[in-house]
Amino acid sequence: MSRKKGGFTLPGESGYEKLTLELAEKWGADVIRDSDGTQLSDELLNLDYGIYSTICIIRDHNEWIRKNSEKQQQTFLMAGPIMAQESSVKIALMQEFYREQFQINDSKEAMKYWQVYDRTAQKEIGKDKWSYNAEDESVTLVDIMPFHTYTVNFLAYRIWEEISMYNHVTNKWDKEHLMQLDPCYPEAQAYLLEWMENWCKEHPATTVVRFTSLFYNFVWIWGADERRPNYFTDWGSYDFSVSPYMLDKFAKEYGYALTAEDFVNQGKFRVTHMPPTKKQRDWMEFVNEFVISFARQLVDIVHEYKKEAYLFYDDSWVGSEPYGERFEESGFDGLIKCVFSGYEVRLCAGVKVKTHEIRLHPYLFPVGLGGAPTFMEGGNPTKDTQEYWVNVRRALLREAVQRIGLGGYLHLTEGFPDFNEYMEHLSDEFRDIVSCHDKGMPETTGVKVAVLHDWGSLRSWTLSGHFHETTGHDLIHVNEALAGLPLDVTFINFEDVKNGKLEDVDVVINAGRAGTAWSGEGWKSEDIVAILNRWVYNGGVFMGINQPTAADGFDTYFRMADILGIDEDTGARVCHGRLEFEVSEVEGLLTKGCQFRKKENLYLTNRNTRVLAEVDGQPALTICDNGNGKGIYMSGFEFTWENTRMLLNLILFAAGKAQCENGKVVYGKYLTDNPFTECAYYKATGKMIVVNHSERKQETVIETDMGIKEFVLEPYEMKMVKSV
Amino acid sequence: MSRKKGGFTLPGESGYEKLTLELAEKWGADVIRDSDGTQLSDELLNLDYGIYSTICIIRDHNEWIRKNSEKQQQTFLMAGPIMAQESSVKIALMQEFYREQFQINDSKEAMKYWQVYDRTAQKEIGKDKWSYNAEDESVTLVDIMPFHTYTVNFLAYRIWEEISMYNHVTNKWDKEHLMQLDPCYPEAQAYLLEWMENWCKEHPATTVVRFTSLFYNFVWIWGADERRPNYFTDWGSYDFSVSPYMLDKFAKEYGYALTAEDFVNQGKFRVTHMPPTKKQRDWMEFVNEFVISFARQLVDIVHEYKKEAYLFYDDSWVGSEPYGERFEESGFDGLIKCVFSGYEVRLCAGVKVKTHEIRLHPYLFPVGLGGAPTFMEGGNPTKDTQEYWVNVRRALLREAVQRIGLGGYLHLTEGFPDFNEYMEHLSDEFRDIVSCHDKGMPETTGVKVAVLHDWGSLRSWTLSGHFHETTGHDLIHVNEALAGLPLDVTFINFEDVKNGKLEDVDVVINAGRAGTAWSGEGWKSEDIVAILNRWVYNGGVFMGINQPTAADGFDTYFRMADILGIDEDTGARVCHGRLEFEVSEVEGLLTKGCQFRKKENLYLTNRNTRVLAEVDGQPALTICDNGNGKGIYMSGFEFTWENTRMLLNLILFAAGKAQCENGKVVYGKYLTDNPFTECAYYKATGKMIVVNHSERKQETVIETDMGIKEFVLEPYEMKMVKSV
Repeated sequence: MSRKKGGFTLPGESGYEKLTLELAEKWGADVIRDSDGTQLSDELLNLDYGIYSTICIIRDHNEWIRKNSEKQQQTFLMAGPIMAQESSVKIALMQEFYREQFQINDSKEAMKYWQVYDRTAQKEIGKDKWSYNAEDESVTLVDIMPFHTYTVNFLAYRIWEEISMYNHVTNKWDKEHLMQLDPCYPEAQAYLLEWMENWCKEHPATTVVRFTSLFYNFVWIWGADERRPNYFTDWGSYDFSVSPYMLDKFAKEYGYALTAEDFVNQGKFRVTHMPPTKKQRDWMEFVNEFVISFARQLVDIVHEYKKEAYLFYDDSWVGSEPYGERFEESGFDGLIKCVFSGYEVRLCAGVKVKTHEIRLHPYLFPVGLGGAPTFMEGGNPTKDTQEYWVNVRRALLREAVQRIGLGGYLHLTEGFPDFNEYMEHLSDEFRDIVSCHDKGMPETTGVKVAVLHDWGSLRSWTLSGHFHETTGHDLIHVNEALAGLPLDVTFINFEDVKNGKLEDVDVVINAGRAGTAWSGEGWKSEDIVAILNRWVYNGGVFMGINQPTAADGFDTYFRMADILGIDEDTGARVCHGRLEFEVSEVEGLLTKGCQFRKKENLYLTNRNTRVLAEVDGQPALTICDNGNGKGIYMSGFEFTWENTRMLLNLILFAAGKAQCENGKVVYGKYLTDNPFTECAYYKATGKMIVVNHSERKQETVIETDMGIKEFVLEPYEMKMVKSV
Repeated sequence: MSRKKGGFTLPGESGYEKLTLELAEKWGADVIRDSDGTQLSDELLNLDYGIYSTICIIRDHNEWIRKNSEKQQQTFLMAGPIMAQESSVKIALMQEFYREQFQINDSKEAMKYWQVYDRTAQKEIGKDKWSYNAEDESVTLVDIMPFHTYTVNFLAYRIWEEISMYNHVTNKWDKEHLMQLDPCYPEAQAYLLEWMENWCKEHPATTVVRFTSLFYNFVWIWGADERRPNYFTDWGSYDFSVSPYMLDKFAKEYGYALTAEDFVNQGKFRVTHMPPTKKQRDWMEFVNEFVISFARQLVDIVHEYKKEAYLFYDDSWVGSEPYGERFEESGFDGLIKCVFSGYEVRLCAGVKVKTHEIRLHPYLFPVGLGGAPTFMEGGNPTKDTQEYWVNVRRALLREAVQRIGLGGYLHLTEGFPDFNEYMEHLSDEFRDIVSCHDKGMPETTGVKVAVLHDWGSLRSWTLSGHFHETTGHDLIHVNEALAGLPLDVTFINFEDVKNGKLEDVDVVINAGRAGTAWSGEGWKSEDIVAILNRWVYNGGVFMGINQPTAADGFDTYFRMADILGIDEDTGARVCHGRLEFEVSEVEGLLTKGCQFRKKENLYLTNRNTRVLAEVDGQPALTICDNGNGKGIYMSGFEFTWENTRMLLNLILFAAGKAQCENGKVVYGKYLTDNPFTECAYYKATGKMIVVNHSERKQETVIETDMGIKEFVLEPYEMKMVKSV
């Protein structure tokens, strides 16, 4: 083995044994894995490598499911709205939905949960006024109000496992659809436990069983309309965990029953971006308890066979909640997360589990995201890899994971020797970073930042899904910036605020659109507002972005308007005069090239509010002193290198960690002076890493304990230096 | 007298008798008026002209008021919010307010109405927890929650009549401040009736008494902060009509008491742009009853002296409600409205009164709006006049008034002979237009348009104040467009919808921001939605602009989303797929140069919705068939000539009044084919007027009963032709 071996999971490919070994040696792999649709040959299995084997525990059981079709997984769907033009109307249930994914469940147990709603009046229609016709899959309503609209909440089996469905359709496979069983039933559990036992027996070479993932997929409803193939997708929602069996059990355990409407929610469903309800949280807790306890039984079997069990933290992860209190009870040895961004590294690294592994992008597939070419003609996988890596790398500088890996088909790299070279270089950089973390975390500025929203630590770092799926939300941009900054970051909710979690916090960030889970619903509480007011007066920094702390019904729309010194007019103040302002510059605070978003209808609530930036005459960045603390408002935040450094500057300045000398802000040691570069200092090992995020050469100066150090960095370069 | 005399009110100026006569002759004046701060000399009074004399009935009584200072007018004000840092806090009441306008009323009767609020909790603080200190004009709160914010609602006398205050400050007058009495008190009424009687006796030459205006000014609160001189202004709000006397009387009459908070409304006040509450409407009705009945007594005196009484529909018009049911009872002979825009002409012309007069802009003042030079060096009053006149003129083509007039100081015109020429031309145009109306209204397309909002006919044509004060609202742009279009326009509210007013309507327009009075609050009612749904299915056209029909709590944000075929996502649907669309063009429908506003978060609710225009990939104009009717959605509407014609095209097309021939829309007779021109046809007189709105030469073709007619129009030209 070469000196650099370790921490790298390589997707092996049968028929390409020589290539597999070559690249394993080149990239320093210590583990070989299979991929969806591939199997490792005996030749590969018998080499001196660890072997990861992927299992999707709920599928690949078509035979059993054919005998137990009522034990397939389900979901609630809503048909309509349809406008009645008379006192009767007929609603076709499946019109909007992909028929290969769903099949109506009209069993007696399921029908109990069906509901018909008058959406114009937002009232449920009595069961005596509607009937279901199985033949044409429609519900007919009678004796109703004409010219109201109506919907039907119904239960449907999900007859095609969604991840497999996606791979099947995308790769145009021609094979039997894989179904999925619901492990909530005792019979299914008995079957799976036996299956797991047999699988372990039959795979002696496997050292790590990779669960891809557990039982319930995130919600992924496909539509029938080619103009809207994606009907609804939410990485964090629990709709796919329902069944009459579990709902009945929930009612017994929690003392109240959930209805279809609790999930369907007027057709909006319960998207992670909106404030969670008490019922929703109860259901999540209920499912989480089941998922963890049954996962534990499977993990125990894996452990009996002296294998490790890793969980893939994507796909059917729902109910596992790696940031939940129960996760450690599952017994998993490792967590694998596929990453595009820095925040996903932190999301993975922050879970309490022995081994953290990140799956890098791009996958070894012909095409990447959105169908753009990767490992095929017209693709530039090296550039793609570099661009993902700069974001991933800066997060790794802050918090290490133990392993990296790739997925896909190794032979596709054959036409891309520069990729193979770059991957060798990247894995060396990774191992260098890991070595720096050997004796502890890097130094931070000591500033403790808490991101405050409705979900708190349960949705640490993430909102819902990947960056490109959530790019419309300010908070994902903030999270991505924070992922690589020298700050101590936590995620808290409103209960935490009440329970004194602010005591240890210097800066609170609240960022998002009004009415969402990110701006948060807790602001209706006078106690929350008063606690935060007091905390700011005692020295805290409250930073609000976009529509922070928004709530209807009060004198201000932003509940922290008094602290922020700014508020948004929702229409009632169009005839109020607004305080005129001039922009006050603080030299050295705003990075050259940082950008702000134009936001209308803002008005200053305090004549002491300083406007630090404006867009078209509208305030875009303000700061307001309150007692010993400060309020900072930003109209929006977009992740760019310049904005990221501006965010850090603001935080340090407001938290009193940057000194103002000769009218210019000085930020202290171990910070670069160029927003396209960052550094991390590992005091215990005496090492410092400096990185260039950009595709251009960059220069930077860093003040260290050993004096001022100057660096010139090639495009994307990382430099590790000692004794600084 | 020259042939062209009549319908023109000239501001006479003493000391410039010759000029007055010259211009009276040139412009065809039949009436001479005085202005604020001027008096007509006997020489002018004794000529063969009608004489308007301006009286401001509530001011110019300083002597009486000094003896009856508790009978000055009042208002509620709110001090704070102030954050308490301990369990006690002191709030200075007058800090935010202009001391020359307000004086605290801390009489026993007034204090009864004072209120202290915890705004963090939005709860009133008991009277045992606060006390007022008259010496330093502050309220001290004790035993309260620290780090909540607090406000004080208090009563203040208004010690400087606001219009006079404005003129005084603007013109830097150096004279005694004019106070204003509140005519609600029997003693004040007795005084005023006697004063009116004397005034009539002392002004035998006066033919028309112009009331400027009645008793209560629109709300105009000045601030103490030079960075916010205007604290709050609303042309339509009733705050300046309060007094303990009237509030007590109201409680007896209506069976419930109003509080300060009913007016102060968390410091937001009751701005016309927001949905009116029941209490607010009750108060308006109560004040209206008093204003009309006492105005009647004054008008009766005027009539006794064989003079006419005109009301100036600006300044202290509050409570007169020319569109209210009681207005005719007041007995006024005429209504005078100062106009910048076309909709103000319609606002004036639509009132049930014998004589309608519009006061043109610019006034004969050295400076105009916003301080720009007019009748002084650097000014171009002719161009200003032309630009106002094109908007005013097109509204006059639709609905005539009997008179025009000017205000200000005549001698200022001396340096501007081109203005004097243009005014001669303008007044001829005016008299030509009036002559066309002799035998009835012009032909319209026959399409009946109803603008639907919370205020309905009470706020016909206007929102609140002039165009430049309300430019942020879509509806004022729509109203201005409608003011000159060949449509039959009415304004209705939600009660009207319930009472069957839609029967006679072809097109309903609902335009505005969510939560405002213009989008309207009535949409929460399922009945309203169902009535409109049915009406559309039966052939109606429902047009929504910006955030029409918006209400929280339902499956769609736009309550008419099913009809419009489009809705706005307020955050709950960020994970829903959206129907992809392509823009479908209807040749000849969208005017070249028409513009749409970019609006985010819109999504199609119906696959049959046709997107007619988009901005940056977002739908901006859509149309959706429903039964025999249609829904039309526009993301916003700005008044331009191109957009105005586009609006007309859309209305005619959707209402089936335009034919589609060879893929191109044909709109029928008596419509120009150039958006910078319009025409009006007066069938009874056989006359047609064609106007050019632009400063460039324009050509247009008009289909008439006598065949196709072609016109070439000079800049701003108006052509009157016969036998078409």
